[in-house]
Amino acid sequence: MTSAQSVPTIVAFQWVPEFAQGLVRDIRVRWALQEAGRSYQVRQITRDDQTTPAYRALQPFGQVPAYEEGALILFESGAILHHIASSSPALMPDDPAERARTVTWMFAALNSVEPYVTSLNEIDLFSGGAAWGQERRPAVVARLEKRLAELQDALGDGPYLVGRFTVADILMATVLRTLRHTDIVARFPALNAYLDRCNARPAARESLKEQLASFVAPQA
Amino acid sequence: MTSAQSVPTIVAFQWVPEFAQGLVRDIRVRWALQEAGRSYQVRQITRDDQTTPAYRALQPFGQVPAYEEGALILFESGAILHHIASSSPALMPDDPAERARTVTWMFAALNSVEPYVTSLNEIDLFSGGAAWGQERRPAVVARLEKRLAELQDALGDGPYLVGRFTVADILMATVLRTLRHTDIVARFPALNAYLDRCNARPAARESLKEQLASFVAPQA
Repeated sequence: MTSAQSVPTIVAFQWVPEFAQGLVRDIRVRWALQEAGRSYQVRQITRDDQTTPAYRALQPFGQVPAYEEGALILFESGAILHHIASSSPALMPDDPAERARTVTWMFAALNSVEPYVTSLNEIDLFSGGAAWGQERRPAVVARLEKRLAELQDALGDGPYLVGRFTVADILMATVLRTLRHTDIVARFPALNAYLDRCNARPAARESLKEQLASFVAPQA
Repeated sequence: MTSAQSVPTIVAFQWVPEFAQGLVRDIRVRWALQEAGRSYQVRQITRDDQTTPAYRALQPFGQVPAYEEGALILFESGAILHHIASSSPALMPDDPAERARTVTWMFAALNSVEPYVTSLNEIDLFSGGAAWGQERRPAVVARLEKRLAELQDALGDGPYLVGRFTVADILMATVLRTLRHTDIVARFPALNAYLDRCNARPAARESLKEQLASFVAPQA
């Protein structure tokens, strides 16, 4: 596959507020490409760039990451990771059934776990302490804890979601990481150990360090 | 691919309350298999079945759909549709770049549009008119409308998300359908026409009819 040989460009933000640093979703793409042993470039955009027609042609919602690889333009971190993993044995098993299970856990991370995490983060990080958030928070925490208990059960004794490390673990770990302002994951020891295991991978550490070092503070 | 020849089994609910009838996610799998021209079986489970260890082994979160195809067991409607589409030219283009774009829109439907829709549905359908929901609702509607405007812009003049009909349209249409208790989609004429176009497909109509006819009212 020729396109797998091109050096891709990840589009990321030039700067984000501190609470988001280390959590912006381009980190998923950096991590995946490093696991795959591929080099890449990063292009940083500003808040103003997000609304330009040129950027909307790459990313219809004005978010990051966007991804350029030769003529191929992709958005959605899940889809970008699926594309990268499709040509990387380090990220995706060869066996068709194991591939399908890996894709299952990719969707599970983004559609069955992330929304519950996001609901809490919207209250804790974005609601400014509004009354609705304080009224709502206990139910959101309870629902999230139930989901994380189910996730921990599914993980069982396995080191990773489908046994060996796959692209699905990058998605799940980066979802769980966004709870870093709470002790919720620590309430689930096996899940917490799983997250530590993912975070300790060299590509995880390097991609985190890289994103944190990339931000350029805006002019005052 | 031998497994593509097996007759798959979709696991669905025996009954759901009326507000959910026609919206349960097994409809995505029914629709996709019908577009692909494949036959299938449906196995219905009760609320009690959801919590059994046997069912959790199929679906860790106790939800539907689960999917059995020979020895392959999958969950997550997005992943099931990806699996079905991978061997169906009716659902997924052959060209690798177009496939990657199709996967992009699959993830966009489930990770960039559905969460905003779900936030509103949680208030309208599940909050029982609680104060937090009434305080929160205007911001949730505004955010959703912004996202739908961006989606409509991305759709442009195209009949479907990537030009021709694909599996991504099944996901996006079934996400948008869950707003049926509001007039929000109708505020976006091109998006509304897109949804009508998806809903008018024979496989869409048949899968809806089939789900609606499947429910068995619980004993009083």
